[in-house]
Amino acid sequence: MIFSETERNAVYKAIHGRRDVRSEFLPEPIPEKVLSRILDAAHHAPSVGFMQPWDFIVVRDPEVKQRIKEGFITAHQEAAALFEGEKREIYRTLKLEGITEAPLGICITCDPSRHGPVVIGRTANPEMDLYSSVCAVQNLWLAARAENLGVGWVSIIHHEALRSALGIPRQIVPIAYLCVGYVSQFHEKPELEKIGWLPRVAIDSVIHQDRWRAAE
Amino acid sequence: MIFSETERNAVYKAIHGRRDVRSEFLPEPIPEKVLSRILDAAHHAPSVGFMQPWDFIVVRDPEVKQRIKEGFITAHQEAAALFEGEKREIYRTLKLEGITEAPLGICITCDPSRHGPVVIGRTANPEMDLYSSVCAVQNLWLAARAENLGVGWVSIIHHEALRSALGIPRQIVPIAYLCVGYVSQFHEKPELEKIGWLPRVAIDSVIHQDRWRAAE
Repeated sequence: MIFSETERNAVYKAIHGRRDVRSEFLPEPIPEKVLSRILDAAHHAPSVGFMQPWDFIVVRDPEVKQRIKEGFITAHQEAAALFEGEKREIYRTLKLEGITEAPLGICITCDPSRHGPVVIGRTANPEMDLYSSVCAVQNLWLAARAENLGVGWVSIIHHEALRSALGIPRQIVPIAYLCVGYVSQFHEKPELEKIGWLPRVAIDSVIHQDRWRAAE
Repeated sequence: MIFSETERNAVYKAIHGRRDVRSEFLPEPIPEKVLSRILDAAHHAPSVGFMQPWDFIVVRDPEVKQRIKEGFITAHQEAAALFEGEKREIYRTLKLEGITEAPLGICITCDPSRHGPVVIGRTANPEMDLYSSVCAVQNLWLAARAENLGVGWVSIIHHEALRSALGIPRQIVPIAYLCVGYVSQFHEKPELEKIGWLPRVAIDSVIHQDRWRAAE
């Protein structure tokens, strides 16, 4: 299957147009067919030794979302205390999640024991199963963008809060809680870049040839 | 930027046609423009707090590749000893990397200290920086597929072997070593599925509604 230039450009459009959405979610529901396609995209991520360690918990229940939101609030208050001076004030004003506004939540997890203890490719690097589930997140995110759906990754929440809200067993590792929905707009740039929190790093500064280049 | 159905299909084509390539690399060089585009795709991955913690070491030097290959051989021999009976015999016959055949290697790393100790979104989950670099890997992999380039992730190698071959400083975490090149073909299915090592998991068995469903 060769890619045409048009097809290639569409893939780059998804990669460059993908955003972390927090504020622009619309309440309109996501058709089941669309949801199936983005979950299937996640399920076709690369996985170490083909272990497919992921599960997907699709959250529609407002009470469950409210419990997730409470977990966010706790972790967010703890986080604010870690920033100093002006940064703390700015941090407090940022809207960092759309848990209750987004019509869907999707929690992606990793089951390290799926298919037994020895996995091809995970022997030297046991974290490879977690990384497989992260690849599933990114597949889902890009597929969602191609479906004109926004996604926001809520990482300001403790594993225990997710486990408790979603009934996730102890041996399963939460990887991501995603807010998913149609949006009023996609920002042209990442919001943290737009407000000047951090600049886009110059790409030349992170590319090395053959060996790590010592910092100038 | 709305996606048309044609554009959406192109994104799914990349997601579903992406393979982990080990045996099919061709020696023809990758044009600089193409390499720039796939690295730029990786650089536009989501990152926690916009920290962009990744670096990319582009490997062309055959001696450096040889050292990576030796690191693989060591870890591969250790791994073989962990499989039992028939699985061990099968494991030994699998070709699991194309380090010296692929015209390019790309090592993707994570710098946990980039932009200082406190990062938005990494406060409750310190592993989020590693996950950002994994998202960069998946962006690169899909962009490569859209460029008709194959990618293989070599995870059977210890961090120390990568650090030593590539001069990676102690505080930087190696995330992935990728083999990249044009290919004679893309397999229709993952090779481990094709040979019956593991089946594709039924997607319904990994989707839950609102709460984790206890195993039947």
